[in-house]
Amino acid sequence: MDTIDWQLDRTQASTLYKQIIEKIKDKIANGEWPPGTKIPSQRSMSDILKVNRSTINTALNELIADGLLEASVGSGTRVANNSWSVLASSAALWTPYTHRGLQQPNLSTIQKINTYEFDDRVIRLGTGELSPEFYPKELMQDTLRSIGEHITSLGYEEPLGLYPLREELCRYLARLQIAATPASLLIVSGGLQALQLISLGLLNRSSTLYLERPSYLFSLNLFQSSGIALRGLPMDNEGISLEALQAVPATASRCLYTIPCFQNPTGTTMTEKRRAELYALCAAKRLPIIEDDVYRELWFDSPPPLPVKALDKQGLVLYIGSFSKALSPGLRLGWITGPEPVISRLADIKNQIDYGSSSLSQWAVHRLLASGAFYRHVDSLRGKLLARRTVCLQILEQYFAGIATWTVPQGGFYVWLTLKKPVSLNRLFYTALDNGLLLNPGNLYDKQASQNLRISYAYARLDDLATGLYRLAELIKTYRL
Amino acid sequence: MDTIDWQLDRTQASTLYKQIIEKIKDKIANGEWPPGTKIPSQRSMSDILKVNRSTINTALNELIADGLLEASVGSGTRVANNSWSVLASSAALWTPYTHRGLQQPNLSTIQKINTYEFDDRVIRLGTGELSPEFYPKELMQDTLRSIGEHITSLGYEEPLGLYPLREELCRYLARLQIAATPASLLIVSGGLQALQLISLGLLNRSSTLYLERPSYLFSLNLFQSSGIALRGLPMDNEGISLEALQAVPATASRCLYTIPCFQNPTGTTMTEKRRAELYALCAAKRLPIIEDDVYRELWFDSPPPLPVKALDKQGLVLYIGSFSKALSPGLRLGWITGPEPVISRLADIKNQIDYGSSSLSQWAVHRLLASGAFYRHVDSLRGKLLARRTVCLQILEQYFAGIATWTVPQGGFYVWLTLKKPVSLNRLFYTALDNGLLLNPGNLYDKQASQNLRISYAYARLDDLATGLYRLAELIKTYRL
Ligand SMILES: Cc1ncc(COP(=O)(O)O)c(C=O)c1O
Ligand SMILES: Cc1ncc(COP(=O)(O)O)c(C=O)c1O
Repeated sequence: MDTIDWQLDRTQASTLYKQIIEKIKDKIANGEWPPGTKIPSQRSMSDILKVNRSTINTALNELIADGLLEASVGSGTRVANNSWSVLASSAALWTPYTHRGLQQPNLSTIQKINTYEFDDRVIRLGTGELSPEFYPKELMQDTLRSIGEHITSLGYEEPLGLYPLREELCRYLARLQIAATPASLLIVSGGLQALQLISLGLLNRSSTLYLERPSYLFSLNLFQSSGIALRGLPMDNEGISLEALQAVPATASRCLYTIPCFQNPTGTTMTEKRRAELYALCAAKRLPIIEDDVYRELWFDSPPPLPVKALDKQGLVLYIGSFSKALSPGLRLGWITGPEPVISRLADIKNQIDYGSSSLSQWAVHRLLASGAFYRHVDSLRGKLLARRTVCLQILEQYFAGIATWTVPQGGFYVWLTLKKPVSLNRLFYTALDNGLLLNPGNLYDKQASQNLRISYAYARLDDLATGLYRLAELIKTYRL
Repeated sequence: MDTIDWQLDRTQASTLYKQIIEKIKDKIANGEWPPGTKIPSQRSMSDILKVNRSTINTALNELIADGLLEASVGSGTRVANNSWSVLASSAALWTPYTHRGLQQPNLSTIQKINTYEFDDRVIRLGTGELSPEFYPKELMQDTLRSIGEHITSLGYEEPLGLYPLREELCRYLARLQIAATPASLLIVSGGLQALQLISLGLLNRSSTLYLERPSYLFSLNLFQSSGIALRGLPMDNEGISLEALQAVPATASRCLYTIPCFQNPTGTTMTEKRRAELYALCAAKRLPIIEDDVYRELWFDSPPPLPVKALDKQGLVLYIGSFSKALSPGLRLGWITGPEPVISRLADIKNQIDYGSSSLSQWAVHRLLASGAFYRHVDSLRGKLLARRTVCLQILEQYFAGIATWTVPQGGFYVWLTLKKPVSLNRLFYTALDNGLLLNPGNLYDKQASQNLRISYAYARLDDLATGLYRLAELIKTYRL
């Protein structure tokens, strides 16, 4: 019988039971545990590896199911005789690799959502993107024709991105009273990539990121994969709680992440007063701020308060924007601006991971900004989105009045629905899917938000939204019985 | 006097001296070491932290230069009185952050190259991209016009990428006798991103990547940043040495990375025989292969042997391609194909880091493939590139005959120049830059290749190439005196 000459790594992203499986597979694959080898008893493994018997048991059962181990009553568990031919299949070859990388997989609900978003038969009640009906086809057609005439080469771009586009973006930012220069602005492939660059370049496993709870960021595994801790702070209807922020300890490596306009998922917009207080507090605490403002342009009655970045005289704030929400996510185009040394560091990393964003997208957005067409497009979009919000609220009033409450957003895409009684969101998600509805459950954005759903009025056709919300209300009611 | 209550982390990417600087800055910033604090002696720090006195000395000197510490003869080193105002500047706020992330910065020569590539005054003698004169302007104009008419929305794409593009790519791969399906192919933002996804998803700090020496990959910090070890194997003029490969130990997590066609930087193409032997050996050793074939289409007299992937019946090979080299790097479009579970894992990560590649680029390349225009473009490109190679070899013959030898590539962009006598490549790089020449020194691709330069005949105008190579030869000659 072989002994256990390894330990589990509790700092690793992969779960302990997966580590056990991987390790045993490695032993077999390397020939260290040839066919017929009797493996250590569950009790001794549990002692040596300091895990529950049940964890060992789950791992061994999976290996038995895979045909790598064989259990026989009385004589313990042994490496199966045909284990090598099992391992010789391609799946077996790659399985340990696909569990090995630093990056954790997406949350399983997110994986499901990603798949079903491309199934035409489901009604998408929570999707965070504009309906295809808002696609400005003629505008894009003109734009593509015009850049086709203009472009004379499509080589690797400068590390910070296309210079004329950076100039246009600085002009756009000046309207928001943000002083940016082409040297302090980096073009990225969407706001998400800005976040990835920060996770790779500025933070590490000793860092803590403070953020609103709930938040879009909790639905990603991006920061967690780099070992960065996320700490949610409560919010009220003016934004993140200053009291909670006040209590943030003065450790060496920490940042505040905030979505101050039409927050994802609550729809909340931080008031002007709160922004000023938040900035003052962060400045006093030397707490850097990541301001994610991708929904800013989608206001209804009046523009939201100026960005926190507009108050920033000390280089405390990194400011992120994107064309995904107001124009088209398929362009994969956004930006980040902040102190030059930080932007250079992020640009260097971007250059290491993809050599820059698509020049076609960069030229297209440049053209749209330079011609002013982007601004006209957004102007007309606002009214249409408001009309959708109004209808959505009417539908909710009709079907959900007795069973839920909700927020009334002043812009953006989302209504945050709070059910009056608890449900199992997991069961609701799958039951809804069986009934042709794709949901974004609240617990994606806050583990404890077990009575919430993120509803989006931006994506589904209005008749689908009505049908879908009706069906959902019915499900929730029956489901409770 | 404060004591040292921390240890250095030798598994971290950041160097020990940087860790010391960061830690002391943190102590000062947190108020743990207020102004006037006498810091521990160099001797005791060196003892406790187990590093050389000289490392401590370098770190302290940098802190003194930054104005954070003050040394006075006889009374040791103290925290400077104005240290807090120094730290209060934005640069000081962010400096520890920009040193903190997992991702290492680019090699300094690469950073220089990235900057000077956008300076019109220098002649770029080693640049790995097609000259703007090869940009198929009319073709791209037609393409953009046609996709403008075709596209009806630009939403977030499926995790694997645009379906019709994946279908076209499978057709392209079938020509190379690679059996791929749209489910086993992932669209990426260039070949580089495929490598990033592998580094995040399949390997970790216990992994070893074997590769040709020299190789493009040594010029990147991508794998090293994830703690993955790179081990170069010697090559001959038929490709990577099988003897060396034979000796690769059977550890659990290892991969072979190879550029079998017109290798970057040597220009070598692996023979058909070597490919077959290599595949057989890797299959026997259960050693997965990453085949980077981004230069494949750029052959001169006859197509290179079929990809190793074409031999792959066991799902051993991940195959990477790109439109950067044969069409335009600005499109940022490539692909990777391999066993489905591996591709799903990589797609999930891609989805987590940028939500997919630009739809404009995807539609454009789809159109170019579907119409056959891409194939016609490459056909005409080959002849033009061959003409450039011929001229380049003539120029080398004229100016370098006495001082260097070089390879004669059968395709791709590169000539690998070996100087007959040793030089300091670092000095040569900077002297050349002073003289308006941007070089790609051999030691980027192999630390030991101190007598090599990568010359590219693809980028510079031919008259510039002649002027540049003449000047370079003169520099090398004078420089030796
Ligand atoms: C708050 C917020 N930030 C960033 C993103 C990323 O969007 P993109 O990468 O398309 O710009 C999203 C998308 O849902 C979001 O809601
Ligand atoms: C061998 C090799 N692989 C991959 C790349 C990355 O190119 P891209 O990301 O533009 O496809 C390069 C570019 O120099 C290369 O030489």
